[in-house]
Amino acid sequence: MTIENISCNKSFGGWHKQYKHQSRVLDCEMRFAIYLPPQAAEKPVPVLYWLSGLTCTDENFMQKAGAQRMAAELGMAIVAPDTSPRGDGVPDDADKAYDLGLGAGFYLNATRAPWNRHYHMFDYVVDELPALIEAHFPVTGQRAISGHSMGGHGALVIGLSHPHRYSSISAFSPIANPMACPWGEKAFAAYLGENREHWRQYDACELLKLAVSEVPILIDQGDADTFLEQQLRPQQLVEIAGHKGYPLDFRLQPGYDHSYYFIASFIEQHLTFHSLYF
Amino acid sequence: MTIENISCNKSFGGWHKQYKHQSRVLDCEMRFAIYLPPQAAEKPVPVLYWLSGLTCTDENFMQKAGAQRMAAELGMAIVAPDTSPRGDGVPDDADKAYDLGLGAGFYLNATRAPWNRHYHMFDYVVDELPALIEAHFPVTGQRAISGHSMGGHGALVIGLSHPHRYSSISAFSPIANPMACPWGEKAFAAYLGENREHWRQYDACELLKLAVSEVPILIDQGDADTFLEQQLRPQQLVEIAGHKGYPLDFRLQPGYDHSYYFIASFIEQHLTFHSLYF
Repeated sequence: MTIENISCNKSFGGWHKQYKHQSRVLDCEMRFAIYLPPQAAEKPVPVLYWLSGLTCTDENFMQKAGAQRMAAELGMAIVAPDTSPRGDGVPDDADKAYDLGLGAGFYLNATRAPWNRHYHMFDYVVDELPALIEAHFPVTGQRAISGHSMGGHGALVIGLSHPHRYSSISAFSPIANPMACPWGEKAFAAYLGENREHWRQYDACELLKLAVSEVPILIDQGDADTFLEQQLRPQQLVEIAGHKGYPLDFRLQPGYDHSYYFIASFIEQHLTFHSLYF
Repeated sequence: MTIENISCNKSFGGWHKQYKHQSRVLDCEMRFAIYLPPQAAEKPVPVLYWLSGLTCTDENFMQKAGAQRMAAELGMAIVAPDTSPRGDGVPDDADKAYDLGLGAGFYLNATRAPWNRHYHMFDYVVDELPALIEAHFPVTGQRAISGHSMGGHGALVIGLSHPHRYSSISAFSPIANPMACPWGEKAFAAYLGENREHWRQYDACELLKLAVSEVPILIDQGDADTFLEQQLRPQQLVEIAGHKGYPLDFRLQPGYDHSYYFIASFIEQHLTFHSLYF
């Protein structure tokens, strides 16, 4: 488990760094970014894992969300992986569609060819990446998880299916019910096959129905988000949480859209939320 | 003077918007971005003009600097123009070099062909853009100016040569003495010709020597900036200010580089600085 540093920028007294490493789970070279707050020079700090949306890499969140200021204040590391396996040997969608293949791993373990050799982002985020981070950086075993859109789906699914590994979950504009939206149906059919029973493990609504532990969830959603009605569909998730009395705080933010301008506006509140449970 | 809105994102309770318009001064279609804080819905607000560095457009600062949070708190608009004229009819460097032509207007009025028809970013920033902003948006006549690298040069030169139009000036990693660095010598020779007497009006050091008014200046510079020694060269500017007793606060920030991670780390302090003089 070696990692190679490829960039380093001082940021709010701490450090933004990019690394590459050979991923065993994804069978390719991967890049990730980490923000280490100033406190990490003195003592181990907890980690927020951030999962980005369709088309993103490790860079979008680190460059656009403005999260480092609050992470530096709270003493929290942030780790941002890529959104799919990458490299010459990794298959992409035949039509280069933005919502399948490269940049669109959907944080699941693919079982269908040609995807099943490399597309195991679920195992990568749950196991390999935290093991790597905890072996190489001054971090505690405390973890939280968050993400945007496809990454909000990833954060919900990974957090809900591993309640003992994450102390809190949050999401911006998550694909909350992927089995019932075009993005999710297309990706799940390609990666997992047509049997919808195999899809349930990757649908936040299905997982919330079964949830026994109560890892707190915060979701922000803009009401001017053009993907809200057809693709994101948070209603069922909110209803299930209501029925169960699950601690899910869903906030519909008037006027906000699907962009990083929305994320930046509320990221401080998400970091503060996660810090309450470390 | 008509302008056409091309994007709109809610951000920290205010609005990030992009517009295009036909520029008379540049003789081409131009795009700019404006951040309007929530206060602008109630009353006119002062404006900080931000000038970006080489290769940038109106987008880099708005997406990466994280300035909107503090602008919303202070009630300050921010306007970010492009860094050169643009469009099919606008000449570029024959070698497509990043430091001449498109994306590299150096905030001057070119006098040499083929640049002299379109490359008038000095007049655009000083006159046409503020007139446009003040005609179309709820802003006061209070203006401040700031920028990064080539844009730091632009902010210093435009602010120092128009002390009655700007209440304060700031810069990150400015090209502080362009007559004495490779970037400046290349651009000035191309845009203005070989007679160095014609260059003085666009060199912050030369302007500071002649300055009578005392518009306060704040400069942040990272000491790990790889361009510091050869291209940025702030020493002479700091010395001239010292000799004259000019109110210039130069801060060498240990460990910081030339990136937007540096700008984001200190932008709050720059906005606060400008707000003191509105």
